[in-house]
Amino acid sequence: MSIFKDATPEEINRVMEQSWSAFISYRTYTLRQRADFMRTIAAALGAISTTLIPVAMKETNLPEARLKSELTRTLFQLNSYADACEQGNWLEASIDRPIDHHDNPKPDLRKMRVPLGPVVVFGASNFPFAYSTAGGDTACALAAGCPVIVKAHPAHARTSEIVADCIKKAAAQCNMPEGIFAHLHGTGFEVGENLVMHDRTRAVGFTGSYAGGKALFDQAARRKVPIPVFAEMGSINPVYLLPGKLAESPVEMAKLYAGSITLSAGQFCTNPGLIMGIDNADLQQFITALGKEIERAAPATMLHPGIAQAFVTNRSKALEQDEVNIIAISQQQPEENQAIPTIASVTGRAFLNNPVLHQEVFGPYSLVVKCKDLREMLAVAAQMEGQLTSTLMATEEDIQDNLLLVETVKHNCGRIIINGVPTGVEVCLSMQHGGPFPATTDARFTSVGADGIKRFSRPLCFQNWPDSLLPDELKNGNPLGIWRTVNNELTRA
Amino acid sequence: MSIFKDATPEEINRVMEQSWSAFISYRTYTLRQRADFMRTIAAALGAISTTLIPVAMKETNLPEARLKSELTRTLFQLNSYADACEQGNWLEASIDRPIDHHDNPKPDLRKMRVPLGPVVVFGASNFPFAYSTAGGDTACALAAGCPVIVKAHPAHARTSEIVADCIKKAAAQCNMPEGIFAHLHGTGFEVGENLVMHDRTRAVGFTGSYAGGKALFDQAARRKVPIPVFAEMGSINPVYLLPGKLAESPVEMAKLYAGSITLSAGQFCTNPGLIMGIDNADLQQFITALGKEIERAAPATMLHPGIAQAFVTNRSKALEQDEVNIIAISQQQPEENQAIPTIASVTGRAFLNNPVLHQEVFGPYSLVVKCKDLREMLAVAAQMEGQLTSTLMATEEDIQDNLLLVETVKHNCGRIIINGVPTGVEVCLSMQHGGPFPATTDARFTSVGADGIKRFSRPLCFQNWPDSLLPDELKNGNPLGIWRTVNNELTRA
Repeated sequence: MSIFKDATPEEINRVMEQSWSAFISYRTYTLRQRADFMRTIAAALGAISTTLIPVAMKETNLPEARLKSELTRTLFQLNSYADACEQGNWLEASIDRPIDHHDNPKPDLRKMRVPLGPVVVFGASNFPFAYSTAGGDTACALAAGCPVIVKAHPAHARTSEIVADCIKKAAAQCNMPEGIFAHLHGTGFEVGENLVMHDRTRAVGFTGSYAGGKALFDQAARRKVPIPVFAEMGSINPVYLLPGKLAESPVEMAKLYAGSITLSAGQFCTNPGLIMGIDNADLQQFITALGKEIERAAPATMLHPGIAQAFVTNRSKALEQDEVNIIAISQQQPEENQAIPTIASVTGRAFLNNPVLHQEVFGPYSLVVKCKDLREMLAVAAQMEGQLTSTLMATEEDIQDNLLLVETVKHNCGRIIINGVPTGVEVCLSMQHGGPFPATTDARFTSVGADGIKRFSRPLCFQNWPDSLLPDELKNGNPLGIWRTVNNELTRA
Repeated sequence: MSIFKDATPEEINRVMEQSWSAFISYRTYTLRQRADFMRTIAAALGAISTTLIPVAMKETNLPEARLKSELTRTLFQLNSYADACEQGNWLEASIDRPIDHHDNPKPDLRKMRVPLGPVVVFGASNFPFAYSTAGGDTACALAAGCPVIVKAHPAHARTSEIVADCIKKAAAQCNMPEGIFAHLHGTGFEVGENLVMHDRTRAVGFTGSYAGGKALFDQAARRKVPIPVFAEMGSINPVYLLPGKLAESPVEMAKLYAGSITLSAGQFCTNPGLIMGIDNADLQQFITALGKEIERAAPATMLHPGIAQAFVTNRSKALEQDEVNIIAISQQQPEENQAIPTIASVTGRAFLNNPVLHQEVFGPYSLVVKCKDLREMLAVAAQMEGQLTSTLMATEEDIQDNLLLVETVKHNCGRIIINGVPTGVEVCLSMQHGGPFPATTDARFTSVGADGIKRFSRPLCFQNWPDSLLPDELKNGNPLGIWRTVNNELTRA
């Protein structure tokens, strides 16, 4: 599939040792220097977009408009995380002044976040820019002060190679240490495993399938020195249609969701794979309308033949389950490697009893669960695995009448949406892209938004350091003008 | 050893289901209610100190003054984490306002930390109060909104039982849900394993040995749904005597360190187990003075016979290693289960080549490493495993002349001290008690200081919620008056 050679164990070793040398140097770079490097990467990528987009189109089958907006998003991530890096709130800088009490003296204690070390990044097949080579994980790691080693996704290895060259040129331009960024290819599991298991690796960022993410997580836990793996592994993103809201506008709701289900051939980790309602006339209206939309929806070419094949297999497996009925299949003739938009339905009881139906079908597919009543909907919610997102289509009255359901849903996802669709992951500080397992391997972190920087950093406490030797972030005079907690009070003084 | 029966699997199951029910209720309690509960526990414990201290003295062999100050520390933890809970900075509340732009609209996004769920806490043998039943992990979990299940340490099971009763009474007084706090006994590994593996368990807090902590970490990683384990497993806390500082006052430095090594029979996870210097006349003076102090130091009874026996075994193993020379052994006659303060020395080269010497000898023991030169000291620092603390005894000139050494030491510990001793872990926000593995299982968190609350919580994003349905923490009007980041700016407005 790839024209690039897989990295050999010797090459991996060389690269990781070089990353370590780069770390020794890069960790002493100022926030400003890191941010400037990130901005330089963004500018350099922006400058080659006309070269980059056609290559990515060819490799991923994604349309030009989608890739253009993804590239814009990628530059925004680099620039906005650079701003956050310099602003320094992520450092969680804190100062507790000494107390010179004869009975109970307290030392001078100061704390800030420091980088973990070389971070291995595994890009996503569905986001060749935003969650790949120069994507969110890379941006977060560089902001934290960590060198990055990217394992290119074989499905867009050429795109990845061009982006990597661009980063390397930006690194040279910014006088970054040799080894600050490395780019390796690997079509099998071996390269990834060797990278995760290498002594010099300090953390892993991954976006992709459950099988892939879980394998890396398990490898990292088996290391002599375990390291954190933040793997975003997708989810089925349940949507709860509450009766009051559903009664208001079942047809509009169906149109909204048909769009969300088929967007980008359903190839989003936030694709709504499960829609729950109470089995009544309103739900039937919703289903009928949704079915009409799906029948009209155009099949779209998937990212690569492997994903297209997996969609066929997983869809068939889901549709074969007891009591699952097809609601609608797109009536348009698909071409090769195109996914056929499909929706099916099942009863709440059957869903509760069949774990197969809880699995993600990556692509333009969604399952409508017809619950007997709100009690059964609550039972389904309580049984749900951890999710990146959950959505409530609800009036205020629906919410007030179903507080336990709302709380149950809340405590099982990373983002809870009211009256919207889960697709569309805004890049901002308040975003949380990371839900309870199996959505991600650690719900305490996010892979979208500047808080993602914290994944690759840790607090370090300085005790009794003379002011002149402290890092600028912790000096009495606050030369960087950052927010710090001084004796438990946030201040910029 | 224990008069209490080990919890059966059925009992564990019942307790965990009850914890889950409690979670459903407790997670909706306000910050104020959680804080009041914690303060009530503190007051209740303070009120029974005269009952508690004698029981703890008998079980742990720790002297009265030490236990009194530990109890004071425990109450301070509960009260100060309660304050932090209410202050709400740990919530990392954040708001990004919607943008109603026709091309590129942005939804309303808000984020705050929410509890993970039931937390299983394993207390430490060396801190029957501060890192046990009502200790730091319990306080952090309750502040985060999580029910707690304590597995009592068998070495102080009666003390634990009294503390647990006290917490249960406080829970009743504060109208906490049934199951908010549970207390189980277990002398073997089975009870702990069953608790960690239980479906309802969402996180684990542990303070103790490497073997114990790593076993729990491995179990948690093997679960169908892995959960975070914060295990603080101790370290050898290297001390680097830099030549300029050492030349100034070798004898005073020796006295300072003799005190730190023998404090509480060396039974602190921050005990300085390794002291490095350049092999010269100043170091010899330091060694001679340290030896005199250690010869005069009184043997002290250890926490329990198991720990006393482990000290004998581990000390012997260390002293038997090639090129290890005894510097001094306490000359006072020990009683049963008393540890004999001991210091030894070894060359830098021998230390570098012998991993056995890098292992912790829990008790009043320290190894002086005589490095050939600063280059060898740097080699030792670079090879060191992750540490809770590292200490530099250094003048400003020493620091300036050895920046690579300082950076190397920094990036391998959770707290870096200049001209002090590592023993004494202040409870405050700027404390970091958590170093790179094997000091802890996740260096990104701390078990001391209010930031420890974050271990048991995770961010949740609310998208497009009407103001009236948002939690108070995220409402437009900021009714709680907490610090929040609004459109990337920290504000209390």
